[in-house]
Amino acid sequence: MVIILKSIGRVHSPFKSKQDIDPKKFAASTDFDQIEGELEIDEKFSEGLTDIEDFSHIIVLFGFHKAEGFELLVTPPHDNTPRGVFATRSPHRPNPIGMTILKIIERKNNILHVSGMDMIEGTPILDIKPYTQRDRKEDIEIGWLANKMK
Amino acid sequence: MVIILKSIGRVHSPFKSKQDIDPKKFAASTDFDQIEGELEIDEKFSEGLTDIEDFSHIIVLFGFHKAEGFELLVTPPHDNTPRGVFATRSPHRPNPIGMTILKIIERKNNILHVSGMDMIEGTPILDIKPYTQRDRKEDIEIGWLANKMK
Repeated sequence: MVIILKSIGRVHSPFKSKQDIDPKKFAASTDFDQIEGELEIDEKFSEGLTDIEDFSHIIVLFGFHKAEGFELLVTPPHDNTPRGVFATRSPHRPNPIGMTILKIIERKNNILHVSGMDMIEGTPILDIKPYTQRDRKEDIEIGWLANKMK
Repeated sequence: MVIILKSIGRVHSPFKSKQDIDPKKFAASTDFDQIEGELEIDEKFSEGLTDIEDFSHIIVLFGFHKAEGFELLVTPPHDNTPRGVFATRSPHRPNPIGMTILKIIERKNNILHVSGMDMIEGTPILDIKPYTQRDRKEDIEIGWLANKMK
């Protein structure tokens, strides 16, 4: 089965390229909380944002547009052991789709001003979903990441 | 920009068709917690699951393979007001990709036994990611869903 996705908008970020983000920071929980940016949704999809500003957080699906190819085992930047790609958030995945959860600061028509930005300028946005209690899990264990968080 | 995705596996679920899931349940936080199922990853991607069983929860991206077309305003089943599609989890989205968070019970090679199942039999799996502290947000507000959760 094949699914064809099209961009619904693009990211504006203080990170202008991959080199602007320290990949070791992806393991930590709060490093990006203060980073702000914008999600510019194509005007033809703008009506789909109705009511979104009443949610505090959104799930953003995006394309890893700078990733080429994938590996089934990857060695994360803050680790020295190869891990299964599905046990990492590496961009080099069979389907190069990323997921991040951002906080909404404000909506102005088709522009969402957000914090928690961890994507680079120009990243194609594929979907936005509301973040709800069902996405907030209790008693989580985080495998190999656990001793990288200390 | 266009991104082409391919299925990496498929869901096995007690829900055999859309009619088996009460759509009103999607707003609630615990209704699916006890529902079990399996994620069968294609053997060629099996090595990518290495280490995944050390995480308690996984993010699953999947195709809404039964959804045809999309609407920018949708009226959720537990509501009577049209909402922007990006403020809902409706399958009728510009890019028909779903996201759910499941609990891992056990891995046997390329099969993940999970709970929290809210997908239907045969759903194409697009990606699996580890769920971490960064995905667990505090002080969330859930807009129009708030008075549906009571």
